[in-house]
Amino acid sequence: MIGLLLVNGKLCKNPSFATIHDFTYSGFDVRGNTSNQLRAHVNLITADLMPGLNTLGVSLARIDFEPNGGLNPPHYHPRGSEVLLVLEGTLYAGFVTSNPDHRLFAKILKAGDFIAFPFGLVHFQMNVGKTPAVAIAALTSQNPGVNTVANAIFGGNWPINPEVLTTAFHLDKNIVEDLQTQNWVNPS
Amino acid sequence: MIGLLLVNGKLCKNPSFATIHDFTYSGFDVRGNTSNQLRAHVNLITADLMPGLNTLGVSLARIDFEPNGGLNPPHYHPRGSEVLLVLEGTLYAGFVTSNPDHRLFAKILKAGDFIAFPFGLVHFQMNVGKTPAVAIAALTSQNPGVNTVANAIFGGNWPINPEVLTTAFHLDKNIVEDLQTQNWVNPS
Amino acid sequence: MIGLLLVNGKLCKNPSFATIHDFTYSGFDVRGNTSNQLRAHVNLITADLMPGLNTLGVSLARIDFEPNGGLNPPHYHPRGSEVLLVLEGTLYAGFVTSNPDHRLFAKILKAGDFIAFPFGLVHFQMNVGKTPAVAIAALTSQNPGVNTVANAIFGGNWPINPEVLTTAFHLDKNIVEDLQTQNWVNPS
Amino acid sequence: MIGLLLVNGKLCKNPSFATIHDFTYSGFDVRGNTSNQLRAHVNLITADLMPGLNTLGVSLARIDFEPNGGLNPPHYHPRGSEVLLVLEGTLYAGFVTSNPDHRLFAKILKAGDFIAFPFGLVHFQMNVGKTPAVAIAALTSQNPGVNTVANAIFGGNWPINPEVLTTAFHLDKNIVEDLQTQNWVNPS
Amino acid sequence: MIGLLLVNGKLCKNPSFATIHDFTYSGFDVRGNTSNQLRAHVNLITADLMPGLNTLGVSLARIDFEPNGGLNPPHYHPRGSEVLLVLEGTLYAGFVTSNPDHRLFAKILKAGDFIAFPFGLVHFQMNVGKTPAVAIAALTSQNPGVNTVANAIFGGNWPINPEVLTTAFHLDKNIVEDLQTQNWVNPS
Amino acid sequence: MIGLLLVNGKLCKNPSFATIHDFTYSGFDVRGNTSNQLRAHVNLITADLMPGLNTLGVSLARIDFEPNGGLNPPHYHPRGSEVLLVLEGTLYAGFVTSNPDHRLFAKILKAGDFIAFPFGLVHFQMNVGKTPAVAIAALTSQNPGVNTVANAIFGGNWPINPEVLTTAFHLDKNIVEDLQTQNWVNPS
Repeated sequence: MIGLLLVNGKLCKNPSFATIHDFTYSGFDVRGNTSNQLRAHVNLITADLMPGLNTLGVSLARIDFEPNGGLNPPHYHPRGSEVLLVLEGTLYAGFVTSNPDHRLFAKILKAGDFIAFPFGLVHFQMNVGKTPAVAIAALTSQNPGVNTVANAIFGGNWPINPEVLTTAFHLDKNIVEDLQTQNWVNPS
Repeated sequence: MIGLLLVNGKLCKNPSFATIHDFTYSGFDVRGNTSNQLRAHVNLITADLMPGLNTLGVSLARIDFEPNGGLNPPHYHPRGSEVLLVLEGTLYAGFVTSNPDHRLFAKILKAGDFIAFPFGLVHFQMNVGKTPAVAIAALTSQNPGVNTVANAIFGGNWPINPEVLTTAFHLDKNIVEDLQTQNWVNPS
Repeated sequence: MIGLLLVNGKLCKNPSFATIHDFTYSGFDVRGNTSNQLRAHVNLITADLMPGLNTLGVSLARIDFEPNGGLNPPHYHPRGSEVLLVLEGTLYAGFVTSNPDHRLFAKILKAGDFIAFPFGLVHFQMNVGKTPAVAIAALTSQNPGVNTVANAIFGGNWPINPEVLTTAFHLDKNIVEDLQTQNWVNPS
Repeated sequence: MIGLLLVNGKLCKNPSFATIHDFTYSGFDVRGNTSNQLRAHVNLITADLMPGLNTLGVSLARIDFEPNGGLNPPHYHPRGSEVLLVLEGTLYAGFVTSNPDHRLFAKILKAGDFIAFPFGLVHFQMNVGKTPAVAIAALTSQNPGVNTVANAIFGGNWPINPEVLTTAFHLDKNIVEDLQTQNWVNPS
Repeated sequence: MIGLLLVNGKLCKNPSFATIHDFTYSGFDVRGNTSNQLRAHVNLITADLMPGLNTLGVSLARIDFEPNGGLNPPHYHPRGSEVLLVLEGTLYAGFVTSNPDHRLFAKILKAGDFIAFPFGLVHFQMNVGKTPAVAIAALTSQNPGVNTVANAIFGGNWPINPEVLTTAFHLDKNIVEDLQTQNWVNPS
Repeated sequence: MIGLLLVNGKLCKNPSFATIHDFTYSGFDVRGNTSNQLRAHVNLITADLMPGLNTLGVSLARIDFEPNGGLNPPHYHPRGSEVLLVLEGTLYAGFVTSNPDHRLFAKILKAGDFIAFPFGLVHFQMNVGKTPAVAIAALTSQNPGVNTVANAIFGGNWPINPEVLTTAFHLDKNIVEDLQTQNWVNPS
């Protein structure tokens, strides 16, 4: 009747024209470009990049870390839990629980180890080894969102009133204002 | 048959013994104690405090702010959206979107104004008036969780490796370590 | 690629063009017009009126009641639970459980009291004080629906066969037919 | 480890001991007892009566109607949509939409016809034929709830303040109080 | 504003133009055409055929079986549980649990008996009587999907590599290849 | 108060006693034992094996395949979608759509390629290379279930009436009965 097909609110190609290429992705054997201030790179494949994920509720990421401190900085996913599997190297990984306890759950992970990051909690990974590290992460949403905490707080498109941040972060106003002028790089 | 009743994984009183008192709560006309470093107070009523909320998917909070800077600091709810209505005073309120844009949506709100904080995003309110402020907030979970960002990062029960935080927050190591020894007060 | 954006089946402005005005609403400090047969007024703000509520799963209402009987008549929300907080005055509020018990849970509420109305159950509020009353209600859907029971039964656009109503309501046919010709005002 | 098994908050027999009898039910070929004021009978099989329905999200009912007016009176299901199939006889069946329109959707149904009653809306069926009628209904919850409107309003365990009902239903106080003393029979 | 209405990702007629015909269906008193290799016929009414089912989460089927072996072959519904009620005749019906146990739950059902098929499990019905059989099934999705197992394995539009099937099904390669050239009839 | 804690219907250790060991798992660097009739091995880690996955909605598997035909045979997950990433070797992987089309979507995958298997559809992987293959799969449920089709059909604890299977699978009765006496190995 009409050519417009919508599933889950997304424009969708006519199912008759879908092919295996909508359901596959190549390149997770390739190292990401880690030449940035975090010395890490996240390649997150969501339904926007791989149409066949639409309605499936899952996305996949490859994360590369340079030796000696390459960092996927503290962040959370507003719409997803995560499991992260170390393929190469040695990662210090952890998450923090919500108010009021803010308990840190952290561990040194080696190849073959995986960790679960519960829905919506802040988590991070840092390469504490002397060789590159690689991890694979699966997230329980086809569009989980990523919120890198420091960047959201200090690196917005428009500065939050510095008084909010001096009180909240126990920092001098000049430090806050200096941070707000810096360049904040998202890991992906 | 047996006396143990469970709904939604919670121990539940026998419905025959439920009364109107399980479904009502009093005291949102009373000012909260704001004598703390944030000069604000959040009284969040969840299903743990009001059994009748179990399975209803909603909780309610009264928030008090002292004049000139009383602050509900940047935080998010892992399991809820929120609407916040100003009853008295003048609040600077806002939220920040996720990666990659980190757009700030903020406004000065007066009595009778309300704002929506989308699911899982960092948001805050500060009293920018010269009189006390009061707000009512409704959250879309009977147990939404609260995660005060600065406290989760710097005030955990066990310190995150400082190298994670120096890289992530662009702060000197001695500032990070000083922050990690401070007392961090949750607003509720 | 194309200008049409859909989230949750609703046409959605381009997120790049969203502003803080899509996420805020003003006017809940203003008394509603209660000059009607119920002597009450409900101002329910859903996602249709405030685009930023789309996908958030919450809506907010201000309800005004004239003294001595202003009534929000028995109704239910097909798609939402509710909490209602009294800001001013004295309300007799309650709800009734389903078959077979039809237990009434009701209480006189004063300013600062709130009550939960469980998902889908019939509930009501009446001002039993000598001064105006004001309440704020939060509902767990951005489009919860409202079904005023008497109006649905007797005030439809086309009359239900009166024999259905005489048997169901234990009323004489002439009373049923008289009711079906009356004007039924929805509280909002 | 322990003998207590819970799925979906219900005590559950050890799956190893489940048998086909937990997943089957007999007797929907038997006419129900319709000797009551409604001259109708509903036999609704939920997960409480058939343990195998637990977590399946469906329940099934057989409804019998005496000739010339046997009535399943206006009611709604707080937690379910419904489809109803006529097996024998002639039913006048319909539903009413919510505020503000209260549109009546109704039709005379014969054997082999079915009708959908949308989630949470008031609906009814009456036998308008001269022979008994039988219908089968499927509901989209293993525990959909039933709320017979007139009975909830006038037949609670404790009377709603009559002033609420006189205003809401446009009825004299003496009629309301008389209705509140009557016996209200639920169809099931 | 615009004429395009979407609910649940489906194009939807303007609600003002909806009629009772969108919510009713006729013809479940009519025997289906069972002259096929399975000697059975399934008439499944989903939201595609009956627009009023959109968002209701339910669909309905009439199934006819010829005497002495009319078969609704082993299949499952990727998006639904099912209850099936026998109206006429005698059916052998059952389902099989998942790995590792593959327990068979089966029974001979007569008119008035019903059986639940849990979400996503393989199930079947065969007429083991000497007269035609008729059943009604309700499924917990408006678009539950049907996957006839043998047809999906051997009757796809393009053959699965036969080595997959010889190993998986313990069959000789020539039998597999013969099966892959046959005509496989879906019951509906 | 009491020692019994339940979340999601599972007995749960007191959160105060939870440790990082509940949220991590080791051993996905170890090759599985593939000495079986399928010459493949699946190590699926669900919430039963890793308590921290409870409520997170995700599980993880490592799958090993011997060269030249090691097979994860056609199966589906009643409660989950899946993404599968090849770490080593060359896999022929695919899935089949439901009735009526049964379209095969299949591809040869190499290290670094991944494929999505939509919710509830039959899928498989076979090592078509001359070296061992390894894959990692993430599933969108903490307890997705696995249903190996051939095993469910022919290898149940109690045989399905062979007439059902001869008609459904177009096989001679003696072949069906022979298959029903064989040993069917689940890949995990």
